[in-house]
Amino acid sequence: MVRKIDHIGIAVRNLNEAVKFYEGVLGLKVAEIEEVPDQKVRVAFIPTGDSEVELLESTSPDGPIARFIEKNGEGIQHIAFRVDNLEEKLADLKSKGVRLIDEKPRRGAGGAMIAFLHPKSTFGTLVEICERK
Amino acid sequence: MVRKIDHIGIAVRNLNEAVKFYEGVLGLKVAEIEEVPDQKVRVAFIPTGDSEVELLESTSPDGPIARFIEKNGEGIQHIAFRVDNLEEKLADLKSKGVRLIDEKPRRGAGGAMIAFLHPKSTFGTLVEICERK
Repeated sequence: MVRKIDHIGIAVRNLNEAVKFYEGVLGLKVAEIEEVPDQKVRVAFIPTGDSEVELLESTSPDGPIARFIEKNGEGIQHIAFRVDNLEEKLADLKSKGVRLIDEKPRRGAGGAMIAFLHPKSTFGTLVEICERK
Repeated sequence: MVRKIDHIGIAVRNLNEAVKFYEGVLGLKVAEIEEVPDQKVRVAFIPTGDSEVELLESTSPDGPIARFIEKNGEGIQHIAFRVDNLEEKLADLKSKGVRLIDEKPRRGAGGAMIAFLHPKSTFGTLVEICERK
């Protein structure tokens, strides 16, 4: 079962500059900045309400965020929904014909277990499903 | 002050088909469907946690959602942050040099008062600020 929007992933070219906007202008606060080598990203976690904004900067020109920005420019890249049991949810989605990018949970930023659904199955939106202990 | 993510606006070609995915596959529930003639959209409100997903279908080929889909395809169109006092926040943002699409609050879907910031001032993301009574 989907519990809430866990986070919104936003692709930016320069994390430090974008953080200045979210902190200095919007008045939000970065809780932590983490590098996720597996994803080739540096991530700033910005909690607000019971969700987060995750600002994503590519650490490599061939990373997924660099490729997203090349194609679309900066902006919102994905929406992540929190579930209680990711493996169960993936099996359920698969049985309903949803195309999965990740067949099995993998480790994402902030220690979450995550899996992405293919935008072809979700009306164009890159959807992440995640579970946190 | 930003209180939380109020909603995520997702542009879709066919609201009824997209709703089938969010309800039948993800397991979320539509609270209400509303037409907003001013914005040339039909909106499905899907609460989850303390935020909402808003699915947006254009009711006219020249509406903002139709133009968004023409340029980008279906997908996430904007992120909306809830504030306590929209007029005050807009004045504050303007004083900080943020380019506003809406200089004054206007009525949005679900009875909210809303204003959009220009993506040129927000690192590429269409940001809405909203206030609800």
